[in-house]
Amino acid sequence: MILTITLNAALDVTYQVDGLRPGATHRVQDVRVRPGGKGVNVAAVLEQLGEPVTATGFAGPELGARLPGFVPIAAESRRTVTVVSGGEATLFNEPGPLISPGEWDALLGEFDRLAAGARVVVLSGSLPPGLPDDAYARLIERSPAPVVLDTDGEPLRHGIAAGPALVKPNVDELARLLGRKPDLPADCLTLGVPVAATLGAHGAVLATPDGVWRARPPGALAGNPTGAGDAFTAAVARGLAQGRDWPVVLADAVALSAAAVLSPVAGGYDAAAYRDFAGVVTVEEG
Amino acid sequence: MILTITLNAALDVTYQVDGLRPGATHRVQDVRVRPGGKGVNVAAVLEQLGEPVTATGFAGPELGARLPGFVPIAAESRRTVTVVSGGEATLFNEPGPLISPGEWDALLGEFDRLAAGARVVVLSGSLPPGLPDDAYARLIERSPAPVVLDTDGEPLRHGIAAGPALVKPNVDELARLLGRKPDLPADCLTLGVPVAATLGAHGAVLATPDGVWRARPPGALAGNPTGAGDAFTAAVARGLAQGRDWPVVLADAVALSAAAVLSPVAGGYDAAAYRDFAGVVTVEEG
Repeated sequence: MILTITLNAALDVTYQVDGLRPGATHRVQDVRVRPGGKGVNVAAVLEQLGEPVTATGFAGPELGARLPGFVPIAAESRRTVTVVSGGEATLFNEPGPLISPGEWDALLGEFDRLAAGARVVVLSGSLPPGLPDDAYARLIERSPAPVVLDTDGEPLRHGIAAGPALVKPNVDELARLLGRKPDLPADCLTLGVPVAATLGAHGAVLATPDGVWRARPPGALAGNPTGAGDAFTAAVARGLAQGRDWPVVLADAVALSAAAVLSPVAGGYDAAAYRDFAGVVTVEEG
Repeated sequence: MILTITLNAALDVTYQVDGLRPGATHRVQDVRVRPGGKGVNVAAVLEQLGEPVTATGFAGPELGARLPGFVPIAAESRRTVTVVSGGEATLFNEPGPLISPGEWDALLGEFDRLAAGARVVVLSGSLPPGLPDDAYARLIERSPAPVVLDTDGEPLRHGIAAGPALVKPNVDELARLLGRKPDLPADCLTLGVPVAATLGAHGAVLATPDGVWRARPPGALAGNPTGAGDAFTAAVARGLAQGRDWPVVLADAVALSAAAVLSPVAGGYDAAAYRDFAGVVTVEEG
């Protein structure tokens, strides 16, 4: 079983409107609501892959009704509101809910219970207010299973120091970590842990003590890049759980991530495209 | 007691952002949530005026926790999301919840119970899906107290036929009712019921079988016009409850409405400005 942890899960709300004009009043034609947050998306992709997966994290009263098994918190979880007009998406991300020390203790208890049965643990996304910057580091330290970490800023810096099995920053997150434009793959090798750096349309670089590989997607893809990183993380977690070789894991992650771009919602992928892409992603060493 | 009915009450959410750019991702810096909808705003103004008031209507689970006494419905009430950036407000109005026949029956029972003790009834705002276009007309027919009606479109047309004590359209609502630009006050006199037509910054026209009056606000006002119409309705309801003369009611409503423009939120008014304006609003007959 792969365990995904989403400490800042969200209710993802999508509004369809007919033309977004700042300063105007808009009638929302269609409202869609679904649970979101990076770890929730990773779990949804793993489920579509047929991989045994358990998802937990924090959920306030409203989100908790849709995410049974998440640790309940008193505050409502954040909402993300995506306003879609024509092909354009405009996002509004609320700040996360305040987590109490008692709620964090409850999460640690649930983590210990579930991680004991996990082959891989995935820690994804931002930390809500009230949690220490080293919250992910503490989970990595107590995890009996290898950990894939996908976060940003100080939580990423602290997490790397705790020795996860792999970190998955994108180029912007790497730049924030280094304080400058990253030099790939050299900068990844200085972090002391395996790094899968995702490069958007340019694929990904995987830098490990065993070697460095690059992979590119099968071509330019038009679609919805939201959630492509979560599909990448899902493939990496599955690869680690199955003990596959690094280049095989990287090729699979780039193919699945490309297939996710063709899916209209985060947490899904285009299954036919994934089968097509799986054979044509090329991996170069060095 | 004045009774206000809000059939399409809302959870009004305000997001503060730093610059609204279509197509971009925005971090919401501040989230404010309050119950809203026209009748809820009218009740809040009456409460600030020290007038005994009871508010009811429909409320879904989340809104109902903030509006005890509202008739519970299974669906969540709509949200309105206002994105404020600099001085500019961009609104997104969700469609209303579907009301079942059983829920409408429950509202009618609650209406009969509360209206029996009301001196004036206020019916405000749009109708949610599932209700007939003549829902307000039915409430007017069964009301033992005089009714002030503030709505739009077919519900306004049906409501007028049921003989309310007064209707309060703005110029746009009058134009939709007539199918053309209104000729004031002549068109109001053809409707067969007292009409208070609000003209935004130009004040209001009151057309009744007893006479026609115009009133202007004390000058140009910069502020938040949202809720000014609800303050106008609150003043009219209070004037009717107290049996005041039409010109006195009109002057008071224009003064309170102007003071509401100076309040940052709908449902409030600037008390000092209201005292100042009360003496200087001029009413002309004819």
